Amino acid sequence: MLAGGAGERFWPRSRRQLPKPFLEVVDGKSLLEATLERARRITAPDRIWIVCGREHAAALRRHAGLPASRVLVEPMRRNTAMAVGWAAARLSAIDPDAVLVTLAADHRVPDAAAFARACLRGAAAAEKAGVLVTLGIRPTRPDTGYGYIQLGPVAGPGFPGLHRVRRFVEKPDLGRARRFLRQGGFLWNAGIFIWTARAILEEIEACAPDVAAALAPLRAAKRGMPPPRVLAAAYRKAPSKAIDVAVMEKSRRVWTLPVSLGWSDVGTWASLACELGLAAGGNVGLGNPALFEESEGNLVWSEKRLIALFGVEGLVVVDAGDALLVARLSRSGDLRRLVEALRARGREDLT
Amino acid sequence: MLAGGAGERFWPRSRRQLPKPFLEVVDGKSLLEATLERARRITAPDRIWIVCGREHAAALRRHAGLPASRVLVEPMRRNTAMAVGWAAARLSAIDPDAVLVTLAADHRVPDAAAFARACLRGAAAAEKAGVLVTLGIRPTRPDTGYGYIQLGPVAGPGFPGLHRVRRFVEKPDLGRARRFLRQGGFLWNAGIFIWTARAILEEIEACAPDVAAALAPLRAAKRGMPPPRVLAAAYRKAPSKAIDVAVMEKSRRVWTLPVSLGWSDVGTWASLACELGLAAGGNVGLGNPALFEESEGNLVWSEKRLIALFGVEGLVVVDAGDALLVARLSRSGDLRRLVEALRARGREDLT
Repeated sequence: MLAGGAGERFWPRSRRQLPKPFLEVVDGKSLLEATLERARRITAPDRIWIVCGREHAAALRRHAGLPASRVLVEPMRRNTAMAVGWAAARLSAIDPDAVLVTLAADHRVPDAAAFARACLRGAAAAEKAGVLVTLGIRPTRPDTGYGYIQLGPVAGPGFPGLHRVRRFVEKPDLGRARRFLRQGGFLWNAGIFIWTARAILEEIEACAPDVAAALAPLRAAKRGMPPPRVLAAAYRKAPSKAIDVAVMEKSRRVWTLPVSLGWSDVGTWASLACELGLAAGGNVGLGNPALFEESEGNLVWSEKRLIALFGVEGLVVVDAGDALLVARLSRSGDLRRLVEALRARGREDLT
Repeated sequence: MLAGGAGERFWPRSRRQLPKPFLEVVDGKSLLEATLERARRITAPDRIWIVCGREHAAALRRHAGLPASRVLVEPMRRNTAMAVGWAAARLSAIDPDAVLVTLAADHRVPDAAAFARACLRGAAAAEKAGVLVTLGIRPTRPDTGYGYIQLGPVAGPGFPGLHRVRRFVEKPDLGRARRFLRQGGFLWNAGIFIWTARAILEEIEACAPDVAAALAPLRAAKRGMPPPRVLAAAYRKAPSKAIDVAVMEKSRRVWTLPVSLGWSDVGTWASLACELGLAAGGNVGLGNPALFEESEGNLVWSEKRLIALFGVEGLVVVDAGDALLVARLSRSGDLRRLVEALRARGREDLT
């Protein structure tokens, strides 16, 4: 499980000290808890590992109930290539043929059983063919917040449902996303990767030698945690690259498993509103019931005080006790700018 | 001073128990305090009287520092004809030729000195000619929230500046209001009346015999307060009429004194925003500084928590501790509907 992220896009609920995985947004559970439940359907509890930043390590250990030995604490942020690389290095020391399923700690997948079945099917293929498998979510709308995968030919008779990947496409604009849907053969890239430790380390070596070089001293640590100084030196030296860019877009061993599955990366207040069923004409409330009067298409979240909306539409209103946000839902993807403005005004304490 | 009103249009700041006169909206003062200051420029402190409802009597006495003998507590609401009628009856028992200046406790007039000069000029005319004088505010915009006065001929050589009234016009629509401004000779009816006790009682007798009949037992009480039972019986019997409709629109003794004066009845959040200088492109904050990011034309009021706006315009956001309002400013004239919805949902406690 990858549990990085700064949580700026869910301000004021998420903070530096309380990032998105801890948000109890759906069904009264945190996204982290729900992800752990999904993980437990895929593997034994003692085979769940977390990669996270220093500032959240203690809280994650506590909430996830994991021993320190299975929490890989990154000394600084270096994006996902280093995160999955270190995890692979660490697990490779235990078993080079171990199959890794990479889950983000802050996604939402309502059907955990179907999700587990897909992951296990992907794991079987990854183990048997030594390929990098990425789940491809069949798109239900022309979302411009996700990258896309274009399907290649079927993988072969031994691997029903699996396809080669023709190419990865960065987040498209709306016109392009619409064409993808019309044309068919495009999937959302959910960032859920399945591979053996051996395969991903080989491909990092082949596609991202700078990442591989940074990982070398970590691999030398064998079965234990590397000493803090070694770890810090490795991370300082490491490039900050996403695994998608560093490896997936370059490797020739990438397959995808298309699945029809409710899935969201819950990236913004708007996508959360969407997940919570905000349809045109309605409103969504979390926490204390809100009052919506002559108002439509709003998301309101308050734990204590009553929030009353009158004559407004398309807003997100979130009360976090010491701070309250009123924003246009459609602008929630840029919320980082607000958090930056807050810091510029000396209110780091609220971020 | 008339201090009635339910304060629904300033929810959640104003409540049944804390109506609009108590709102500390401008210059850190309540509208009531500012009105008292204006009154003290017009007359001696011991000649200030308040007419109010039962539920606010104690708070008003405390805030205004008035003895109970100068607070006329109405046992039920019967609109302004009864309120000014009772005040006139009460003061007539002391001095039939007393000049009364009727001020609303919740208006805003930034230039208190100019206002006092106008009132004293009106008072001189009212005393000398025995007429009903109403201040007419020269309009600065085609406001549809105010009634208008059409100027008649000048009153005469002894009364410089004073005019007869051609007619009163109810709140016009925007087209009509624009025509009034273009045409000239129209004034805002501010509801600031100046007359002798004798003159208004005579005109109530002539124009509104039903009000006069209800007042009769109160006049019989002479210099003391009428016994509670007599008062209650009089009010039960009284019609609920505005003095404008009951007398001003009918009487032939009505004059107006046109004045160029900043004045507002601060009737809605939108007009408060206007008073606070909300111009296109800006935002207005009351209380704790708010953060406005890529947002324009909003009014925010919070005493404690930080309120941050992002990508929104034309909103009023008001935090009152136990309740928070987010509304479109242009809809704030209909806010009563929200308060009614709240009551319908059993949340009387918040209204």
